[in-house]
Parts: sequence; structure tokens; C-alpha cells
Amino acid sequence: MTDTKTPDAIIWDNDGLRLLDQRILPSRVEYLALGDARETADAIRDMVVRGAPAIGITASYGVVLAARNALAAGADDLARAVESDLALLAASRPTAVNLFWALDRMKSVLVNPAFSGQGLVDRLGVEAERIHQEDIAANRSMGDFGAGLISAPCGVLTHCNAGALATGGYGTALGVVRSAYAQGKVTHVYADETRPWMQGARLTAWEMVQEGIPVSLEADGAAAWLMKQGRVSWVIVGSDRIAANGDVANKIGTYGLAILARHHGVRFMVAAPTSTVDMDMSSGDGIPIETRAEEEVLGVFGTRYGPEGAGAWNPVFDVTPADLVDAIVTERGVVERPNRERMARMMAG
Amino acid sequence: MTDTKTPDAIIWDNDGLRLLDQRILPSRVEYLALGDARETADAIRDMVVRGAPAIGITASYGVVLAARNALAAGADDLARAVESDLALLAASRPTAVNLFWALDRMKSVLVNPAFSGQGLVDRLGVEAERIHQEDIAANRSMGDFGAGLISAPCGVLTHCNAGALATGGYGTALGVVRSAYAQGKVTHVYADETRPWMQGARLTAWEMVQEGIPVSLEADGAAAWLMKQGRVSWVIVGSDRIAANGDVANKIGTYGLAILARHHGVRFMVAAPTSTVDMDMSSGDGIPIETRAEEEVLGVFGTRYGPEGAGAWNPVFDVTPADLVDAIVTERGVVERPNRERMARMMAG
Repeated sequence: MTDTKTPDAIIWDNDGLRLLDQRILPSRVEYLALGDARETADAIRDMVVRGAPAIGITASYGVVLAARNALAAGADDLARAVESDLALLAASRPTAVNLFWALDRMKSVLVNPAFSGQGLVDRLGVEAERIHQEDIAANRSMGDFGAGLISAPCGVLTHCNAGALATGGYGTALGVVRSAYAQGKVTHVYADETRPWMQGARLTAWEMVQEGIPVSLEADGAAAWLMKQGRVSWVIVGSDRIAANGDVANKIGTYGLAILARHHGVRFMVAAPTSTVDMDMSSGDGIPIETRAEEEVLGVFGTRYGPEGAGAWNPVFDVTPADLVDAIVTERGVVERPNRERMARMMAG
Repeated sequence: MTDTKTPDAIIWDNDGLRLLDQRILPSRVEYLALGDARETADAIRDMVVRGAPAIGITASYGVVLAARNALAAGADDLARAVESDLALLAASRPTAVNLFWALDRMKSVLVNPAFSGQGLVDRLGVEAERIHQEDIAANRSMGDFGAGLISAPCGVLTHCNAGALATGGYGTALGVVRSAYAQGKVTHVYADETRPWMQGARLTAWEMVQEGIPVSLEADGAAAWLMKQGRVSWVIVGSDRIAANGDVANKIGTYGLAILARHHGVRFMVAAPTSTVDMDMSSGDGIPIETRAEEEVLGVFGTRYGPEGAGAWNPVFDVTPADLVDAIVTERGVVERPNRERMARMMAG
């Protein structure tokens, strides 16, 4: 679907929805077939698929599955019949706004009186595929805009995975890296391993290896020392939700990187489509931060390292205030030194 | 040997030297018996024992083993006979200065013309045990001095393990925590898991659970967000080497914590005995930083997470400049806002 060398995270065809199981990458490349909205919501919650844009796209297809199943079950009013499925999908994960944005787009089709029955199911399929394709196109644009900010030679530090696997394809932060690498600007990518889910080690490094882009993993704690050595001039990350004032929610650890970047004179770029911007959220203070199970930190994928009797604090996102962000890059362009006014101007444009 | 509830990391008796194998804690509590200097050096390099003071103590006992074996083998000149063993021990790990400090103390006994033969071996044993006991006493003093800086109620963030396991007993950073907790000042300890070796998850959390001190693990990347929530008012860490100007080498990740602490108005304390202070090292710029195998970051204790084709950057220490340190606590007292002059005054006192 895209011309990256990374397998598609989300495949939609006449058989239904298949998701690359990102929990077991890179050791195994396996797809899970999903048949209804509940399976789709479970896959999002259990992190078969992750990354804000990919979650939004997946949920859109989940709505198509819901409507298709409701029609097959003889429902007259599809919009009503899928209400509980929409609620299931909306409850799968709280932080990424793309999920709610995508569900809203699907709802606007569902309530369109021009469609009903199979025609509505078909129209929902078209809308979901459009959301998917628009995301890829947005990533391409972001790649160009973001690369335009970078001067060669440039080492980049990235956190978590904001790549093809986290999006419709190509990637947000890693889309910028791909474009800038193709232009000869990026010389080396450092990837935080990104505990507890190891998205950097398992997903970002895998994407970079497949693209032939030189990549080195580092322990998350090594970031400050990396910057001190002068090895990177940009930190580039994605986002799960950007507030109206430019505050950025992203994977836990991002906020610290932004502080460290500012301390070292390293620039800090957030690449995200406008579907990640939540203009109804005044500032980052209101963004719900998901807390996941303590076991994710007490061990590594089921192998326990912490002792019995210890607890764990496991918020999986944090919020970086806008004043620590040098540039927010969307498909519409670059917002340098983001604030409420500049964000509004970009969203209106 | 100490009245902590944590098993002794280093046991010396007539049978020789036994080390608690810290690579397999907390799932198994097992001791390795060491019979000569080579086995001792291997144990240090392979991290059976770790922590700057514990490494120094272990190396001291390694010298006793070397001299005992040389005497049994019929050597006349013990000092000369153990030279290669001293070199082996000195080459085991590069960053912690306590190793070289302890070897120097043992050398001064070796070259003392007042002792030879069994008398020299006995005298070396006395010296090693003295180094060990002095370290415990130093930890106790540091505990008192450090606790004196803390006001109740106080949440503490610590990194790696600077506890009983890293020292002769009681601990440097965790000695301060133990003393401050006993005084009712510390309410909760947050422990960075401390990739790649998980000393926080495996060792610090284990020590705290055994003491009954409430402890929560966190992913290393969560530290900034923890501080932002106001959950901690002190970061307390140990050190592997402190330069004459107050720059502090410690586990990778410490430097970043110091920057984050300053950003949030959280105070930053380093607890270390004067054996960690290297007055011959003008600043932190000259401290050798050990780089370990890429595999430590590409996986977790042998389970691979990174893809084939990816590299890893694995410096295991970093240097925190003195101006980010609020207090260095040694057994001689507290150096607030450390600089060259204040460090010299403390070391002279």
C-alpha cells in the first residue's frame, strides 16, 4: 500500500481486517484477522496495533465490520445497531485523539440519511479507506515539511515508534526521518528502546533496518549523555494528542527528552497529522493519561525482574508543554514555536 | 555483618571470599565462592558484584587471595608474586575509582618491609577487612548527614542501586534513604528500573521491600513526569567517581536526572564515601566511561528484542557536572553546591 519496505500494519480487503501483530515483532511477522468491533477494540487495547493514527484507522475499519455484521443480522437502523460497538471502540484506549476523530468521521457517515443498508456499509468502507489513504498522504507531506527543517549532516534521536507501523504507512516522525534520509541529510538514527513496551527496540529499529538507515538503540536513560556528546541535532517524535495551545501528549519519556533537548541546544520536532490536534482541548492539562498494568514495568513481557512486594508506577504517556517544542509539523505545514494563536492559524488554513 | 535485612553482598571468612551473585537477584539468592584473583576479577567484570564501594572491597579481598595463593606456591617476594594479579584486578572495570583506591591501600601493605610471608598475608587480610568495615561505618555516617538534609514528608527518586548490595553494607544513596525513613522523613521511594542491567528493578526494589520501605518501580523514561507530578522532592544517587571539581560519574541516566531535577526544582543529592573522590582527576571530562556489549541493550538478559542489523550504543556511566548537584554527602559531611574549593576543603578536613 505504501512504498516503504515495512510490512503494512493494517490490511483491509474483501475478507475484512487484518492487523500485523506488533506485540511479537520483530521476531515473528504474523497477521491477526478481525471479524467484528469487539475483536477490533480488544486488538487496540491489547496493543496488537498501536500508534495514534493507526489506532484511528483501525477503529474506522472496526465500524465497517460492525455495520456489515449488523446488516447480516438483519438490523434495519444500522446507526442505532452499531452504537454499542462504537462505544466499545471508543473505550479501547483513552489518550490518542485520532481514535475519537476517526469515530466521529464514521458517525457522520452513519447518520447521513442518503445511505442505508448495503449502500451504507459500502459508504462506510469508502470512508475508512479514505481515512487510511489520507493518513498516508499526510505522512508524505509531513516528511517533506519536516525534512525541510533539517540541515545535513544530522543525527536524530527518536522515541517509541512513530513510523509506518504506527500510521497508515510511511510514518510521522519516521516519515520525516525517511524523507530527510532520502535527501542525504540524516546520517544516523538513535532509537530509545522505550520501556516498557520496547517499541523503539522492536519496531523503530526494525523499520530502520529494513530501510537501510543506520540505527543504534540506546537505553532510555542514555539520552542526555547522547546529546552531550553532540551526536544528535534533532529529537523527532510523534504525538497521540496535541492540545489547542500546542502542548503535546506522547509516549512516556517524551517530556523528559524535550527538557534535555532544550538544555543541550538540540531541537525538538513533533510530527503528527491534524487528526492528532484536538482543538477542543485547551491545554495539555486536560488530556487523559492512560495508566497501564504495573506488571508491564515489574517485568519485561512476562519475565519478572522486580521483587514480590514492589509496586510500579506506569503512566504510558506524558505531556510536553508547547514552549519546549521547536516545531510541530502537520500535513498543512510547520508551526514553529507553537502557541495557541499559531496552532489556530495552522488549523484554519 | 550489618543490621540491614538485605543479605551481605560480600562475605569473607577463613574459607575465603563469597559473593552474592547479583546477576540473578531477586529470583535466586546464591553465593559464588572465589579462590583467586582471576576469579575475583572475572566476578567484577561480569557483574556478580557491582557498585563502586563493593568493587573496591571485593578487589581488596582478591589481593588477599592472591597473596595467600602465592605463599602456598612457595613465593619468596609476595609483592612481586602478586603483581600480575593486581593488574588483573585493576583491569576488571575502568570507571569506579574505589577499585584503584582499594588496590593502592593493599599495595601499601604489600610493600611495607615490616611484613613478609604469613605475617604479610594476615596483615593484608586485616587491611581488607578494615576497608570493608570502614565502608560500612562511612555509609552510616552518610546516612545521618544525608537524612539531615531532608524534610518530611519526602518522596525520593533513586537510580540504579546504591544500596547495601553496592557497598560493604547499608548503602550510600539507599543508606540515606534508610536513615531518613527511620526518622519518618521518607514516605515513598521511586526506583528507576535502570536499563540495561535492571539494578533498580532487581536490587533496589528488593532492598526496599526487605526493609519494609514502600517502593514503586518506574520506567527510566518516566522520571520527568514523576517530578512534574510533585511526587518527589529529592533525587538521591550514588557515584562511581567524583572529580576534584565535584563532577560526578555514575550509572548512565544520572546526568539526565540531574537536568530534570533542576528543571523541576527537585533537589539532587550524591552520597558516596571519600574513597570515591578522585582528587587527581581535575574534572569529569577525564573520567573513563566504560562501554559494554551492544547485546546488553539489544535484548534483556539474553532475550533479544532488537532486530538483526541494528546496533546499540551502550555507555554504562555518564558524568553530571557539579553545578547540577545540590549536595555531595560523604562520611565527612555535606558539601552543598560542590565546587573545586569546597571539595578540597572537605577532603582536607
